[in-house]
Amino acid sequence: MYNIGLIRVVSIFEEEFLNTHGKIIEKNFTDIKVESLAIEDQPEGIHDDETEKIAIPKIVNLAKKNFSNKDAIIISCAGDPALEILREEMDVPVIGAGESAALLSKIYGEKVGIVGITKNLPKSYIKILGSNIVGKPFIKGIDSTLDLMKEDGIDKVLLHCRELKELGADVLIFACTGLSTMKIAPIVEKEIGLKVVDCVYAEAVMAHGACIRKDFYNENVN
Amino acid sequence: MYNIGLIRVVSIFEEEFLNTHGKIIEKNFTDIKVESLAIEDQPEGIHDDETEKIAIPKIVNLAKKNFSNKDAIIISCAGDPALEILREEMDVPVIGAGESAALLSKIYGEKVGIVGITKNLPKSYIKILGSNIVGKPFIKGIDSTLDLMKEDGIDKVLLHCRELKELGADVLIFACTGLSTMKIAPIVEKEIGLKVVDCVYAEAVMAHGACIRKDFYNENVN
Repeated sequence: MYNIGLIRVVSIFEEEFLNTHGKIIEKNFTDIKVESLAIEDQPEGIHDDETEKIAIPKIVNLAKKNFSNKDAIIISCAGDPALEILREEMDVPVIGAGESAALLSKIYGEKVGIVGITKNLPKSYIKILGSNIVGKPFIKGIDSTLDLMKEDGIDKVLLHCRELKELGADVLIFACTGLSTMKIAPIVEKEIGLKVVDCVYAEAVMAHGACIRKDFYNENVN
Repeated sequence: MYNIGLIRVVSIFEEEFLNTHGKIIEKNFTDIKVESLAIEDQPEGIHDDETEKIAIPKIVNLAKKNFSNKDAIIISCAGDPALEILREEMDVPVIGAGESAALLSKIYGEKVGIVGITKNLPKSYIKILGSNIVGKPFIKGIDSTLDLMKEDGIDKVLLHCRELKELGADVLIFACTGLSTMKIAPIVEKEIGLKVVDCVYAEAVMAHGACIRKDFYNENVN
């Protein structure tokens, strides 16, 4: 059994909501146990530079205080806040949702369409995908995860995805873990006909890979 | 159970040797069954542009003829021969050892040292890692996997890795699956103190991720 510490960057402490990402991961990787923790005093999460800046020390403290004995740590946010600092300061492998999704998207296509709810592109997407990004990264008419939940939320997502496909995207990548909890990746794949890389899926694959690495090597020696 | 078709780019048909990579993957992923096939008439494998060129149509034919019903196909060679063609021409996800290793290395470091036996850098390493590659990609005094097996083989590998670390590498990446079958990743990690991304490990993580993708999304819907 591998133990993963998962950080939610929105201040939610109601068990079921807090554990949403962790439960998805545990359901798909039966050798993983996830402990989720959320940062304090940010009920609206991270949505701009300022809210990212104040979140970073909270993420670092949370990880250092609680997750130093885990097999891997996941920062479950497409913006990968505190990813580099935690990697420098901790020995545990640290996985970012955004970086993981950007890396995995390269297996499925070259021209990438981004499906998110903020005007800014997550930094890992810029760094890893750069000029291969087509179109706008945000869904028109959607300003928050609450908008996504409305009756026409999915139609707006699909309209955005269709536009990205018309612009030449051959793979789609989510840029918001809210889209993971909505579980719409299979709907988008079916309706649009392009593969979708979901952030919680991507962080799970990469974190599992990080967990098994040592055993994989040692297994082979013995 | 997921079914993976694995292509060896060296003409080996003796069962144990043919299945070496597949067995490593099956041992670490108990939900994967690997069928390995090797290309014909290339007992020395792929070692330059000419031998890659003649191998490509053989790889394409092998995959199309035998692996169209698999959950994923692995081209088990750091050079990723025929990767792009197979992705264009087949519906099955296609995983390359080199691309997988290059992508996974980004989780463990930025400045990458390459540990291989050929003068040329695999194309995915150039494309994905570019100017972050430090030092030479080949081990001095090693011209083939046979040289690796000699008494001083491991010492030469470690000397190369130490030089890469001195040049600033913060992660090491193998560029030859022969190093995987030698099972020296844990020795290098222990002696050098840097994380190593092994090609068979990397292709296994990425192929498993490709296999579970649809179930991961659908599981969440149900």
